[in-house]
Amino acid sequence: MPSYPLIAYDQASPEVRAVFDDIMATRKVDDVNDFWKALANHPPTLARTWESLKQVMAAGELDPLTKELIYIAVSVTNGCEYCIASHTAAAKEKGMTAEQFGELMSVVGMANETNRLAQGYQVELDERFRN
Amino acid sequence: MPSYPLIAYDQASPEVRAVFDDIMATRKVDDVNDFWKALANHPPTLARTWESLKQVMAAGELDPLTKELIYIAVSVTNGCEYCIASHTAAAKEKGMTAEQFGELMSVVGMANETNRLAQGYQVELDERFRN
Amino acid sequence: MPSYPLIAYDQASPEVRAVFDDIMATRKVDDVNDFWKALANHPPTLARTWESLKQVMAAGELDPLTKELIYIAVSVTNGCEYCIASHTAAAKEKGMTAEQFGELMSVVGMANETNRLAQGYQVELDERFRN
Amino acid sequence: MPSYPLIAYDQASPEVRAVFDDIMATRKVDDVNDFWKALANHPPTLARTWESLKQVMAAGELDPLTKELIYIAVSVTNGCEYCIASHTAAAKEKGMTAEQFGELMSVVGMANETNRLAQGYQVELDERFRN
Amino acid sequence: MPSYPLIAYDQASPEVRAVFDDIMATRKVDDVNDFWKALANHPPTLARTWESLKQVMAAGELDPLTKELIYIAVSVTNGCEYCIASHTAAAKEKGMTAEQFGELMSVVGMANETNRLAQGYQVELDERFRN
Amino acid sequence: MPSYPLIAYDQASPEVRAVFDDIMATRKVDDVNDFWKALANHPPTLARTWESLKQVMAAGELDPLTKELIYIAVSVTNGCEYCIASHTAAAKEKGMTAEQFGELMSVVGMANETNRLAQGYQVELDERFRN
Repeated sequence: MPSYPLIAYDQASPEVRAVFDDIMATRKVDDVNDFWKALANHPPTLARTWESLKQVMAAGELDPLTKELIYIAVSVTNGCEYCIASHTAAAKEKGMTAEQFGELMSVVGMANETNRLAQGYQVELDERFRN
Repeated sequence: MPSYPLIAYDQASPEVRAVFDDIMATRKVDDVNDFWKALANHPPTLARTWESLKQVMAAGELDPLTKELIYIAVSVTNGCEYCIASHTAAAKEKGMTAEQFGELMSVVGMANETNRLAQGYQVELDERFRN
Repeated sequence: MPSYPLIAYDQASPEVRAVFDDIMATRKVDDVNDFWKALANHPPTLARTWESLKQVMAAGELDPLTKELIYIAVSVTNGCEYCIASHTAAAKEKGMTAEQFGELMSVVGMANETNRLAQGYQVELDERFRN
Repeated sequence: MPSYPLIAYDQASPEVRAVFDDIMATRKVDDVNDFWKALANHPPTLARTWESLKQVMAAGELDPLTKELIYIAVSVTNGCEYCIASHTAAAKEKGMTAEQFGELMSVVGMANETNRLAQGYQVELDERFRN
Repeated sequence: MPSYPLIAYDQASPEVRAVFDDIMATRKVDDVNDFWKALANHPPTLARTWESLKQVMAAGELDPLTKELIYIAVSVTNGCEYCIASHTAAAKEKGMTAEQFGELMSVVGMANETNRLAQGYQVELDERFRN
Repeated sequence: MPSYPLIAYDQASPEVRAVFDDIMATRKVDDVNDFWKALANHPPTLARTWESLKQVMAAGELDPLTKELIYIAVSVTNGCEYCIASHTAAAKEKGMTAEQFGELMSVVGMANETNRLAQGYQVELDERFRN
């Protein structure tokens, strides 16, 4: 169970409700994920995290689906079950196919493998990577 | 220094040279990175790793630049200095801009932050992520 | 399920019981956590781990609650669900408030984020950090 | 070398200078760490990261030195050399003694050890940690 | 639940069945683990991963049980619950005793502890490790 | 540079010297690694870590070389440069060949890859791994 009870909308303070309202409006959903209901135990963290995430995940030089793929790559490398589940769901909603997910996993898998090979063999930076 | 001496082309066995030749031909470069010269200490690992990487990083449902961004995301999360340097160089060659790199880092940073918040608050999977 | 069956007090050897007795006496509880019942499958690891932990977590230059906060910070960064749950419970018993936990999580989250930004941008040590 | 050139104050845009000015004023220093000069390559990330860090590291329910200790605990667990160096320096400025650092490391070390023991033995949550 | 539905033998394409057949023949079992049924969602990853694993885990200069112990050591350090469970089962089938597992865990635990102590104290390579 | 100055034998207290003496006698060397000179800044951590390591790395149900291979596997997965260098040197002294190191790295690499594939596809424990 969560470290502290989830805080649902109707139990929430006006400060927390304002964040929940913005999440629902931005994502066009009618409830927020339990992640946000857990963060609501510390309103400044809830507000700051949402503001940052909203800014970072918006379309920019990288499109929203690419950003979700990157998010999944990090979450898988960190082994965060909740984040893998929620961002895989988000990526599917943004159009990710099983084939794209398969390629994503293959790159994540190989990167994790070669990261360790490079470290294990103690390979130093090639001269040209230093200049 | 590396765990075992780097093996340069002219010191390499025919088996190792064949892999080096394929790397240079595929990447259109005239030498291989020191990573491969380190792996050459164990020819089966050299050959297998290159075959896998060539297959995985080829254009598919995800384009090569997107695959490099994913590679960097994993390498940063694992703190692999060599891999960050070599794949950032590779991504720049494939057209990555400083702005795109900045957005990549911002997503990687936020994913690392929220992964830990989700785990720290012990948030369980929402009902709809389980079905 | 655990890799090996948990060993309860009444099934335990005298050697294991002596460790269990010391845990219960030190912590003023009437049973030990399942973590210790699992370690009891390898008595030398059980005894050594408990001796080390008892020494390390005792009051010293850092107070016991601060040590629990540090323990949680590491456990969250490693994604150890069992450790997060048990040490969050221990910290609450030592007086940790929801507000303190919220601040702890906010620092852990930002540290995880900036660790990756520093590594991703390959920032080298400032001259003054080297001297 | 950094992924992108460090941006010094006199090369910086007004937007970046405003952040640098606030860092220097808040920390009462006359230059910013290279970490910030690297982030200056992506002004939105620079501004957002600084705003978040300033908020999170300010005195609250946890005092500033405790927050630095937590920051170090995470940075060590992630193996971020730059962050370990800069936050150890910051903690020393806030009064951390060698003895306190030694206790910090001993807790970080034991937490990393027992995290793996709990996961390796696949210990499930005790009944009372679930309710 | 898995990111994509598990693909059982009788639902699988001939390409996937060929891999499943080889896994079952090599391991002398009459069904494959769910891991492979998940990878079957992306046949190239299924085939490549199995070919690599079969090659890497075969007897060589290291015997199969030693390879399983190494696999467990990595999986525990990464906190991969599925991998810990499946490779601990595989190691038991290859003769691992509870005592050997206990020693494995004790080494994994101490390595995780001292890795962090070395990084936390920022110990540089001794002269003789550099030459 | 280290977080605190290395403490050499002739600067050390009798308490620290006793540990250094035991390390040198046990390992049959005439100086201790810098790791121990760093830990000497906190004598209780120095003494406890050495006692634990001496016990854990001694021959038991697993032989000393196998224990070194496991140590390297963990250190590579954690990206601890110092530990990789020092334990690779120790393993070579105990007879590890380049071929054995190559197989070790291939297992470490594949384990890191498949750990992430299992987590990425969110594979749940097979029924038989739960009983």
